[in-house]
Amino acid sequence: MVTLADVARRANVSKMTVSRVINHPEQVTDELKKLVFAAMHELDYRPNVAAKALAKNRTQIVKFFILEEISTVEPYYMNLLLGISLALSRHQYSLQLVANNSFDLGVCDGYIITGMRKSDYEWISRIEKPVILFGENLYGYDFVDTNNKKGGMLSTRYALSLGYDKVVFVGIDLKEAFEYSRERGYIQVMQESLKEPEIVRVENHSHKSQEMLQKNWEKYPKNTAFVCASDRIAVGIERAIQEKGANIPDDYGIIGYDGIFLDQVVSPRLTTIRQDVAKLGEICGEMLLNKIEQKGKKQGFKLLDPMLVKRETTRRKGGSEKS
Amino acid sequence: MVTLADVARRANVSKMTVSRVINHPEQVTDELKKLVFAAMHELDYRPNVAAKALAKNRTQIVKFFILEEISTVEPYYMNLLLGISLALSRHQYSLQLVANNSFDLGVCDGYIITGMRKSDYEWISRIEKPVILFGENLYGYDFVDTNNKKGGMLSTRYALSLGYDKVVFVGIDLKEAFEYSRERGYIQVMQESLKEPEIVRVENHSHKSQEMLQKNWEKYPKNTAFVCASDRIAVGIERAIQEKGANIPDDYGIIGYDGIFLDQVVSPRLTTIRQDVAKLGEICGEMLLNKIEQKGKKQGFKLLDPMLVKRETTRRKGGSEKS
Repeated sequence: MVTLADVARRANVSKMTVSRVINHPEQVTDELKKLVFAAMHELDYRPNVAAKALAKNRTQIVKFFILEEISTVEPYYMNLLLGISLALSRHQYSLQLVANNSFDLGVCDGYIITGMRKSDYEWISRIEKPVILFGENLYGYDFVDTNNKKGGMLSTRYALSLGYDKVVFVGIDLKEAFEYSRERGYIQVMQESLKEPEIVRVENHSHKSQEMLQKNWEKYPKNTAFVCASDRIAVGIERAIQEKGANIPDDYGIIGYDGIFLDQVVSPRLTTIRQDVAKLGEICGEMLLNKIEQKGKKQGFKLLDPMLVKRETTRRKGGSEKS
Repeated sequence: MVTLADVARRANVSKMTVSRVINHPEQVTDELKKLVFAAMHELDYRPNVAAKALAKNRTQIVKFFILEEISTVEPYYMNLLLGISLALSRHQYSLQLVANNSFDLGVCDGYIITGMRKSDYEWISRIEKPVILFGENLYGYDFVDTNNKKGGMLSTRYALSLGYDKVVFVGIDLKEAFEYSRERGYIQVMQESLKEPEIVRVENHSHKSQEMLQKNWEKYPKNTAFVCASDRIAVGIERAIQEKGANIPDDYGIIGYDGIFLDQVVSPRLTTIRQDVAKLGEICGEMLLNKIEQKGKKQGFKLLDPMLVKRETTRRKGGSEKS
């Protein structure tokens, strides 16, 4: 049987170093990792993850539940997964992905859950192992999310600063915390600017927001900006404006929300609020592993600040009408 | 210590049944699984995946490498991951996802690798554990893919059947097997129809194909159909045609390739060749687990047939010009 000492000898490093590469790869340079892994492969050495798991009465597995219909959200979750995987691999954890309405709790050390709707919380409350939710919630569960209110504030403030007369919020027709927070950000900035908030909500599909605007076109005169709760909604708004032959960004401004994939596929490209979803995933993973290590101790929540990305669906600063 | 017998007693089933739920969940009804998992959770029973792994000298972990830049392909890989996860979870395997140019082989029982370019094969050839590639290759590695040639044939044949005079293939500017196969399918059908193949290649970005068509607009008279090697390319072609104010699908037809997400976000929605990517992922997972079980025995390849999805960027059958 090949031992850790054999690997250390082959790689010409100390046993301590080999152990660190295995147990705390995040503390080690890539070069050193390469060297040690090469020696491990040459010798076919298998560090005893399984033995360790057994000793600790752990599985070293985390399950990630996506409760939302995957087809509507794909690009988003891929980035989240990457972040989660990164955090887990640092601690020799691996992942099981559960989607498409399977509620199979299976065997693992803890859960990351996302895409919850109100009706899911009853089920979640009965889970006995550590759980971290991705997405803000009002029920006291530990969670990670972007600062949705701040996102709403950022985009609204930007639209106003560009001189658009009317700034409308196009929200997602869901009674969920993240949506309320984005709206709250919008409302707060509008009120601070002594403007009246105007909110319309649609299903989170580009065809729905497109339809909404087609039907209500007269309500929105030139010099209106649409602050949207998702890039999907923003894409539909963009299409409806283009159909009418109106100019983006001079006649109408659009700001999306998410900043993953979709914003860059459309033309003109969307000004949007970007969430660093991979980073959020990483934080989810770290928080869950801490919670497991601390035997289920409450972790609270962590909000990451979103970022305004200025592109082609909003005027340049100063207001192009005057320039 | 809670035993399997305790779980059986609590769930009021035989020990055999509990064992089957744990080791062969795919052979068991969802109801039975629910019952047994509930008992396991109540008793806090942890089946000895770790012990089993240890006994077999295995990790029960599979690593999935995405070698391609993630930002360009996100929606696609999410579905693949779902399929892989499904196959792994059936056999109590879990997943580690490796992306963004990390080549950290780490510790696991085998690898699924995708997004390979020619320069990656040297590295892949040195991996000593079982490997399955997602994506056809010419180097003799076991792989899973859609039947790319058939996909090219399907779309070309459909474009011709709709009465478009000129059918052009807009390919991806990569010297890779999947691209060559799609082109081969196009060429074969064109030759069978005694038409001259006409191929143009661009980078796989909508803005690139859009630019290409803008620059070469006079080359493509009305009644041309563009058979594209990806939906990204098709989206750019659609935009360029719309800019010129030409009619889709009467003046120009467009057929994409992939059928994931992007095809439905644009307007008009793309006629496309759909790959069942989740199913492909499942097959990758199954093939790799077989290979691990069979101590690295060669598995060959498996091609899944793609499907033509008829939408709004192609005429209705019979050719609308004549109707």
